[in-house]
Amino acid sequence: MKPVNLLKKADSIDKLYVYEKVGRLNGNVLSVVNVENRTLDFHVHENSDEMFYVIEGGFELETDEGLIPVAKGEFIIVPKGTRHRPVVKALSKFLMIELDGTLNKENSGELYEE
Amino acid sequence: MKPVNLLKKADSIDKLYVYEKVGRLNGNVLSVVNVENRTLDFHVHENSDEMFYVIEGGFELETDEGLIPVAKGEFIIVPKGTRHRPVVKALSKFLMIELDGTLNKENSGELYEE
Repeated sequence: MKPVNLLKKADSIDKLYVYEKVGRLNGNVLSVVNVENRTLDFHVHENSDEMFYVIEGGFELETDEGLIPVAKGEFIIVPKGTRHRPVVKALSKFLMIELDGTLNKENSGELYEE
Repeated sequence: MKPVNLLKKADSIDKLYVYEKVGRLNGNVLSVVNVENRTLDFHVHENSDEMFYVIEGGFELETDEGLIPVAKGEFIIVPKGTRHRPVVKALSKFLMIELDGTLNKENSGELYEE
């Protein structure tokens, strides 16, 4: 049981699009990932809500209703079953929380590592 | 579905020790609370892990192994079944995540509001 500094953890990851697990919480996995200039395909998580917290930078979450800007220091929760995709331009650093087993190459922007 | 700015949300709460719900994630509740100069009694959450994220300030998490300092920008997860208590001196602002129904007057430092 020890504290994790989100920004230091993100800064310590030297690759983009690699999800580093930083904790587990009631069946959910917390991971930190750095992303730049990437738009994922639209997808749905049938079984898990998904939380994006912006440690640094910012992005737009696109749903069927349009684009939602999410800035540094903000989080947004995508309810399960909601069609969505993240649109990331400038380098941004995220804490992600979702049920274990939710992320994979098809919906995470690649390079998902255990 | 809209973004929540953690610091703005904490700053908008004008009372101490009041947990304001800011989201739900896979059966967990996210809440923001401001705390100053308060040490809770030791307690155990039998059914839920508990996450403390420090938005502003800092605190010490006390367990049977001693005191763990947790600073601004850091989170710590207390696994379920772990005897613990938060020790807060200076005004601090927290995002808390735990299973719905976990927090109550006996373990949250009072004033838990729906």
